[in-house]
Amino acid sequence: MPNLPVSPLAPAQFPNLSSVPGVEMGAVAAGLRYKNRPDLLMMVFAEGTAAAGVFTRSKMPAAPVDWSRQALDSTGGYARALVVNAGNANAFTGEKGIKAARKTAEIAANVLECQESQVLLASTGVIGEPLDVTDFKKHLPRISAGLSANMWRDAAKAITTTDTFLKGACKVVEVNGKQVIISGIAKGSGMIAPDMATMLGFMFTNAPITSKCLQQLLSSTTEKSFNAVTVDGDTSTNDTVFAFATGGAFSEDLIDDADDPRLVNFRSAFQEVAIDLAQQLVRDGEGATKFVTVTVDGAEDDDAAKKIALTIANSPLVKTAIAGEDPNWGRIVMAIGRSGEQADRDKLAIWIGGKTVAEKGLVSTKYSEEAAAAHMKTSEIDIRVDVGVGVGSATVWTCDLTHGYISINADYRS
Amino acid sequence: MPNLPVSPLAPAQFPNLSSVPGVEMGAVAAGLRYKNRPDLLMMVFAEGTAAAGVFTRSKMPAAPVDWSRQALDSTGGYARALVVNAGNANAFTGEKGIKAARKTAEIAANVLECQESQVLLASTGVIGEPLDVTDFKKHLPRISAGLSANMWRDAAKAITTTDTFLKGACKVVEVNGKQVIISGIAKGSGMIAPDMATMLGFMFTNAPITSKCLQQLLSSTTEKSFNAVTVDGDTSTNDTVFAFATGGAFSEDLIDDADDPRLVNFRSAFQEVAIDLAQQLVRDGEGATKFVTVTVDGAEDDDAAKKIALTIANSPLVKTAIAGEDPNWGRIVMAIGRSGEQADRDKLAIWIGGKTVAEKGLVSTKYSEEAAAAHMKTSEIDIRVDVGVGVGSATVWTCDLTHGYISINADYRS
Repeated sequence: MPNLPVSPLAPAQFPNLSSVPGVEMGAVAAGLRYKNRPDLLMMVFAEGTAAAGVFTRSKMPAAPVDWSRQALDSTGGYARALVVNAGNANAFTGEKGIKAARKTAEIAANVLECQESQVLLASTGVIGEPLDVTDFKKHLPRISAGLSANMWRDAAKAITTTDTFLKGACKVVEVNGKQVIISGIAKGSGMIAPDMATMLGFMFTNAPITSKCLQQLLSSTTEKSFNAVTVDGDTSTNDTVFAFATGGAFSEDLIDDADDPRLVNFRSAFQEVAIDLAQQLVRDGEGATKFVTVTVDGAEDDDAAKKIALTIANSPLVKTAIAGEDPNWGRIVMAIGRSGEQADRDKLAIWIGGKTVAEKGLVSTKYSEEAAAAHMKTSEIDIRVDVGVGVGSATVWTCDLTHGYISINADYRS
Repeated sequence: MPNLPVSPLAPAQFPNLSSVPGVEMGAVAAGLRYKNRPDLLMMVFAEGTAAAGVFTRSKMPAAPVDWSRQALDSTGGYARALVVNAGNANAFTGEKGIKAARKTAEIAANVLECQESQVLLASTGVIGEPLDVTDFKKHLPRISAGLSANMWRDAAKAITTTDTFLKGACKVVEVNGKQVIISGIAKGSGMIAPDMATMLGFMFTNAPITSKCLQQLLSSTTEKSFNAVTVDGDTSTNDTVFAFATGGAFSEDLIDDADDPRLVNFRSAFQEVAIDLAQQLVRDGEGATKFVTVTVDGAEDDDAAKKIALTIANSPLVKTAIAGEDPNWGRIVMAIGRSGEQADRDKLAIWIGGKTVAEKGLVSTKYSEEAAAAHMKTSEIDIRVDVGVGVGSATVWTCDLTHGYISINADYRS
């Protein structure tokens, strides 16, 4: 697989990420699959750091996903470390895979003098090959000896597989009159070529919140960010989003409820960081040349709106029409119909680039094919529909389906 | 849109279809979108002919779908005619579309001296353009004047849009010691380019069966044929399968129960014709170079097996791996996990081309990458999985996802 050119939709540069009190990190080149680049990351957290996770819904979860789910359960949502490797997903590796995950946690726990269950794991890379962790006994102490509060670029690099750019985001807000940082990194470009599965997203903050509060925030935020983006609709065995809040290391006065009014700014900033990271995944979608926002209003409820939006966003016919810069709204109608959710054909309205295309179940008299075609030539495409049933709404983000996707996924053998 | 070359997966020739007593047909070039080719078909049935239909599950059904559903309801399952046009789907055309459908039925009913509700309709083609049926007043009488029992090739041609070959199938069996014909035609190649939606399948028989029996047979058969094939997972606003049984025109002794033992041969022949037609749709999938059979065993029940099989068959990553002749079984694992159905990761087994790839949740010690790669180079790909949970099983058919698909759907503007 050759090196891919940087996506045309990539941000201009990797942003400045602020260090987060209580968070240190380090990465090394372990040579798991790649040469001369960091591929093993350890993030280390102060004692008392709350941890939360959202995992793949796959029925074939990888060993590190099983491990991390159980670890979070048994600690009640605390962690001292996160170890991530790229190049091998440790998925579909049977008993050996479970042992490799346990062994990784054991080595990290020894180095950091903590419980094994306080070590969370994530892996990304080839499915079905045993992960050899023997050398982790050498690598993790080396990382531990050189930890730094600000090696975000190395951290972001160490978790990538075929990503064409590094993904990070940061926000600073006030909570209770004190400055709070939210820094995050992510990797992924859909279920990626040729087995380089997995979307990973990690967010770190020093907000003074409990594990319960963090998990609530992460779960609701993920629905509107990492779970609202799609490249090809496929789901990895390893998808994982973690959040860590170090507030408990510095104070005993922690906010326990995600709806607490003191968190109003934090909640939006946390969601903005998650959405920013999630959108960067789409901007690195295989072969993507257009960034597409799909908004659905007027659905029975928000869940129904999201299902309709994802059906539009995942439709190969809609995605190829966008690639072809064709304002083919008939395909949008088709996708809405296919979603299975309630929609009133005779009240349906569609906007492309903010301009009315269809209304009351018919092509609009205001429709200008020229205006719609001009919008389709831009790289940021905006599709909105109102299905005329209720007040449910949702927004999802996707990219177009191009020859590039086929080339990446079919032309090169793994 | 240029003329597409004939699919490499096309059958060698259009088969010989037997005429069916009580069925006559005719087609003309009405110039609805195409020039110099038949695009308007009328099939005419003897009085007493039973009719059954299975329609798109789309929430945005086209006007002819609404019409035909209501017509079948109001007659209780009888028909004297089927009128089909190609080039315009009469979908998302509002009140005008409903009027065009009603007008078509009215003209046919006048010509044939029957009730309007005894005329079934199907349309395929562009979405969102009004269908002008004014000239049908001229065309339908002309067809009626030249009806023939054996113009199957014209009939098959008249219902095509961007199909690259004509689709037909025929079987002859005995019911109660008498010869019974089943002849069928179909069109479609997935949700086809650029708006040429729609899968249509029509089967005609002189079996001595009631409407109720015919509807039972058609519904169960469609699940294992037309609803078990997928090109890109998209669903048209116009998908329609009809069956007509003329037995009631010749006898009062009709079989009323689809499970009647006298129908044992007929049932399998009927299903074989439906599967043959459905597979031809896949063989004409846009850009298809491989015909793929996906079989799932060991699922919780047959519905779960079918959902898993369709998730594998619709996965862009599985389909591009097949296009790339890559025995990438990790993507099959991913798709099974994504289906949402019960699967036992640690009992999962996978076969490619009949050879074991994975068993007990691990790559098999018997796995030969070479043998699997050799099978992937053929044009008839066989994937089987056992998910280790129960006894549910299902088979679906699909094709690969290639540059050809992108070219057809993105490179040419509508």
